[in-house]
Amino acid sequence: MTTVAEAQKSIISQAKSFGEETLPLEKALGRVLAQPILADRDYPPFNRSTMDGYAVQAADFLDKKLSQLQLVERIHAGSVGTQEIHSGTCSKIMTGAPVPLGADAVVRVEDTQETSGLVTFNIETIRVGQNIAKQGEDAQSGQEILSNRSVITPQVSGVLAVTGNAQVTVARLPKIGIISTGNEVVSLGTPVQTHQIRDSNAWVVRGFFHSYQVDEISTTLAKDDKAVLQETVAGFLADKDIIILSGGVSKGDADYVPEILQLLGVQQIFHRVRIRPGGPIWFGTTPDGKAVFGLPGNPVSVQVACKVFIEPYLRTCLGLPLLSPLWLPFSGNRTKKTPFDEFFPCELIIHNGQTGVQAVRYNSSGDIAATAKSDGIVLQPAETEQLADNAVVAFYKW
Amino acid sequence: MTTVAEAQKSIISQAKSFGEETLPLEKALGRVLAQPILADRDYPPFNRSTMDGYAVQAADFLDKKLSQLQLVERIHAGSVGTQEIHSGTCSKIMTGAPVPLGADAVVRVEDTQETSGLVTFNIETIRVGQNIAKQGEDAQSGQEILSNRSVITPQVSGVLAVTGNAQVTVARLPKIGIISTGNEVVSLGTPVQTHQIRDSNAWVVRGFFHSYQVDEISTTLAKDDKAVLQETVAGFLADKDIIILSGGVSKGDADYVPEILQLLGVQQIFHRVRIRPGGPIWFGTTPDGKAVFGLPGNPVSVQVACKVFIEPYLRTCLGLPLLSPLWLPFSGNRTKKTPFDEFFPCELIIHNGQTGVQAVRYNSSGDIAATAKSDGIVLQPAETEQLADNAVVAFYKW
Repeated sequence: MTTVAEAQKSIISQAKSFGEETLPLEKALGRVLAQPILADRDYPPFNRSTMDGYAVQAADFLDKKLSQLQLVERIHAGSVGTQEIHSGTCSKIMTGAPVPLGADAVVRVEDTQETSGLVTFNIETIRVGQNIAKQGEDAQSGQEILSNRSVITPQVSGVLAVTGNAQVTVARLPKIGIISTGNEVVSLGTPVQTHQIRDSNAWVVRGFFHSYQVDEISTTLAKDDKAVLQETVAGFLADKDIIILSGGVSKGDADYVPEILQLLGVQQIFHRVRIRPGGPIWFGTTPDGKAVFGLPGNPVSVQVACKVFIEPYLRTCLGLPLLSPLWLPFSGNRTKKTPFDEFFPCELIIHNGQTGVQAVRYNSSGDIAATAKSDGIVLQPAETEQLADNAVVAFYKW
Repeated sequence: MTTVAEAQKSIISQAKSFGEETLPLEKALGRVLAQPILADRDYPPFNRSTMDGYAVQAADFLDKKLSQLQLVERIHAGSVGTQEIHSGTCSKIMTGAPVPLGADAVVRVEDTQETSGLVTFNIETIRVGQNIAKQGEDAQSGQEILSNRSVITPQVSGVLAVTGNAQVTVARLPKIGIISTGNEVVSLGTPVQTHQIRDSNAWVVRGFFHSYQVDEISTTLAKDDKAVLQETVAGFLADKDIIILSGGVSKGDADYVPEILQLLGVQQIFHRVRIRPGGPIWFGTTPDGKAVFGLPGNPVSVQVACKVFIEPYLRTCLGLPLLSPLWLPFSGNRTKKTPFDEFFPCELIIHNGQTGVQAVRYNSSGDIAATAKSDGIVLQPAETEQLADNAVVAFYKW
């Protein structure tokens, strides 16, 4: 049976780009840059005062031991000084204004007194370059300042704005089809009988894709009936880039998903992985590169599969690096229950004065509320029979 | 001068709810629940088989040492068995189906052989309750399963769906007005002269609020001109719940923001905090409870202020607990530059085999690209002169 690492490698090798599109910056938050961003000019673009104060020649203090200078001009941010600074003179300058010619330091206003055009300085020392952000010190014109394939966070959006990118080219997002299978499953809004359950898997998968700004998401239910399933999957194969099924992949008499997928020309890459929960997962692709994930029907299995399998696929398609887990100390003890890699829901806690993780109460892979109260999942690898208190573990945030 | 902790306390004490609204679940991702969620029935709602297999009486194996049982029925998920199980009989049962009356264990299909209505079991042991998720074991009808004021994550949306909440009551979001002040600031899309810079602060603040799903956000520029500033702020005060200004709060000749705000009836709660970067921050409220944050104009100051001051305010308004930092080991050494609390951009790294943080290259509070390459900020508290390698520090993720 396939290991988790092998399964991830197979999945990633099938990833493909969905193309690119150009958007106005205000629509691009959370999207993935598909162009490198170069500095359009030096940053700072000029020698900028970082303080409200006086622009001076440092040598007037260091060499000539002056303590009073003649004021020649006031320079506000957004304007340019017209007077060159010579020995014995200074200009008042505001934060963000260009340092005038001849000046090589700014003394902050708190250390001065200005009276009738004369400025008295109460300073012990001064440094050439003091309180000046030098032209080009952050980035030089033409230098790459954001790499292709950055997520457009609030911080990145600020950099895009300052460098004049009103339009940005981003990775196009896939169209998603989600099919929840099972005769026992009814949709939200439908009356539910005792032996039935309302679908939650489609909501969780939808939420996962939504966190990558994917919003072209169709969801539907399918009964455990070969003809119904075949028609539903065929409809989505015609139209979607990624199809996620839940249920119907295990060993039950009505588990038709693998059979129907192969009938429809989806080539199986693997079926069953050495993982708990979620072992019966099926993965395959169509000749034109669409990906189909057949997940087990249990809610926690679906959530683990999103993090462990679907997220690496999606990130690779978008050109993003895989997410690294946080390596944190574990609080508690845990004995493995199977010979497989086991993932279990955990919460972040303070453990011996630093951030650690501990397991949340969790009955079974059907436990509806356990993961909602957890911060993510921790891996107990196949070869680690016992997780001891304080062992460093891989934590994957939801 | 106010400490960071005092400033945060003052800000939080001014927080107020923006009300509540009811939304369809598909519009509620990322919003904050304003109602507790109770289990509408037991979960699981019936004794559910967690495996494909055979429902049996455990005593047939434990006491009577049988190894072959007569098959009386097949029960698919979504249907209900009609035959009670007695000694010597079993029903085939699929994952998710209700366990029939009389049965107290399920043997997985892998450990059986079925021939002509007789099932042979190859098992060494069996346990009462094996492979059965017992009715109510996850949650009992009426029990609170999600607290008021949970963020609706994908996991939470799954719980809301399964419990039948097609409509949910959530915290209403504030209307935001963002004013970037300064004669040197031009907006994206406008030609920029050498001594000017394009606005980035409004984009960063907008992105921060967007991460809480706030989308009623107006942004504008204002020159360093008292009349212009007064008119702009007055317009936003009439219409917005929270107003964020950047620039104009320090000691420059054109720093009119505090004066104009007080003129317009915004009562100052504090001006200047013992923090770097971002010390000159101003905070006040109107008689009807609107909050006004006057931030310094430097990009990094604005970003730090979003995390340290605006986020605690917003979360308290929405009813969310404050975010806890991650307490992680620091890699490197850092000497304090001021007597204040200092925040500096850091990235997550692997340090001595576990997750730690290290400072990113960072020239000044105007460095446009430094924070875009960082994962968050670390606090070096006022009283910690030296951060030593491996010291545990508070890390706030962007």
